[in-house]
Amino acid sequence: MKTDGLSINLATVRQQFGLKDGVEACLKHGITAIAPWRDHIQATGLDEAARIIKSNGLKVTGYCRGGLFPAADAAGRQAAIDDNKTMIDEAAAIGADCLILIGGGLPKGSRDIRAARGMFADGMAAVLPHARAAKVPLAIEALHPMYAADRGCISLLSEALDLCDALGAGVGVAIDVYHLWWDPNLAAQIKRAGARILAHHICDWLVPTKDLLLDRGMMGDGVIDLPGIRRMVEGAGFHGHQEVEIFSAEDWWKRPGDEVVKTCVERYNTVC
Amino acid sequence: MKTDGLSINLATVRQQFGLKDGVEACLKHGITAIAPWRDHIQATGLDEAARIIKSNGLKVTGYCRGGLFPAADAAGRQAAIDDNKTMIDEAAAIGADCLILIGGGLPKGSRDIRAARGMFADGMAAVLPHARAAKVPLAIEALHPMYAADRGCISLLSEALDLCDALGAGVGVAIDVYHLWWDPNLAAQIKRAGARILAHHICDWLVPTKDLLLDRGMMGDGVIDLPGIRRMVEGAGFHGHQEVEIFSAEDWWKRPGDEVVKTCVERYNTVC
Repeated sequence: MKTDGLSINLATVRQQFGLKDGVEACLKHGITAIAPWRDHIQATGLDEAARIIKSNGLKVTGYCRGGLFPAADAAGRQAAIDDNKTMIDEAAAIGADCLILIGGGLPKGSRDIRAARGMFADGMAAVLPHARAAKVPLAIEALHPMYAADRGCISLLSEALDLCDALGAGVGVAIDVYHLWWDPNLAAQIKRAGARILAHHICDWLVPTKDLLLDRGMMGDGVIDLPGIRRMVEGAGFHGHQEVEIFSAEDWWKRPGDEVVKTCVERYNTVC
Repeated sequence: MKTDGLSINLATVRQQFGLKDGVEACLKHGITAIAPWRDHIQATGLDEAARIIKSNGLKVTGYCRGGLFPAADAAGRQAAIDDNKTMIDEAAAIGADCLILIGGGLPKGSRDIRAARGMFADGMAAVLPHARAAKVPLAIEALHPMYAADRGCISLLSEALDLCDALGAGVGVAIDVYHLWWDPNLAAQIKRAGARILAHHICDWLVPTKDLLLDRGMMGDGVIDLPGIRRMVEGAGFHGHQEVEIFSAEDWWKRPGDEVVKTCVERYNTVC
């Protein structure tokens, strides 16, 4: 079965594998692209992580995840900026195509989502020179509106693109079908995104969805028109990998990791 | 405490009260506006329900809920249209300010949300002459995107207003803060809505939210800027009631109904 163009975000096998055995499982199934999270890199050590990735000739379709700039005070906001700069350096060290950034939630006690969005924009502007110098593109990932309060105050692809317009070179977007599939303006906004598409994440929306965060579905098990969105993304000029990112506490995280990776390959070949 | 301008959607005390005792609890606390659901009316009988409402001089800020037009086949779609016409007659009989309509989800097996939205628009067009003749305004309620798959394929206020534009007289929108608070275009779209605002529903978004459907919060317990949205709604020209609608399986539905109604009054006076 085809594995060209398939990437595995290691969050998909978070409970089964670390970086090293996650990579081994991917290679066993012919997959040569991954997206690690920071905890994978920290548990392995940056140098060793970079060695594993480079010695195996792996493509890194994204490094997860920065952003999260809103904070209750200036010290918290500066800490987030410093942390993102470190993540940019880590992304460069492992040769990641981009650093994924999410909006972050409302600071504790705040009901002002507009202010949180302003803090996100300010944080982006503060780290962008560092990202440009390191040649690490920043990919803003709009998150589903159900995460606006506690995780991702950037909800719409149109918002992410407005930020790209304002910030200029070095900033793009990650298109994650889970967050965006429902948007009536999706086709128009993906077209608008064009060359700013830096990543394309896939999974599925289950009916019913039993948990807001940890009940994402395997491709084909839900209601998202994956081929339809892929056509939009390719029509906009992005022909990069489709990166499988599934958070699934009660299903896929409980299965053998090898079975999960194998299923990703099968579904990639049949329903994506 | 002030109760002018406060309405209780009886779903808020669904587990405690039917129509008759729900009305009694409201009146005890000085509340003279309610919004019943169809099951309240059916359990009581339409004539008796209308008698209870009229003899107590109650305002009915909305009747819940119609719409749900998407279906897998033509017979299903026609059944939904017929059902909505009956609901329009019921809304007229109880003197409701409007009939609330939600989009409905994807038909079983469908991954085509655009088609579902088309079925909703077609259903609206089919029932509109009946609604106009009965003088029952139809209020499209955009639902939070997390319900797009299984309950409400109309997700954005802008979509609801596009439908109003297309359908003409007799159609407006319900602004429910729970569904819309996160929208970066909310202020602009509420302004655009203007005289088409037919209802204003309030509750709160809890952090964390433990269930997609049944974990809505009491006003003040979450992160929604209720006074800010109210200012937008009043700025657009709507000075009608704020209708409390809370689905809360593990909290408010388990408390004594009188306590729930009393708390609605308190919060209405302190945080709305």
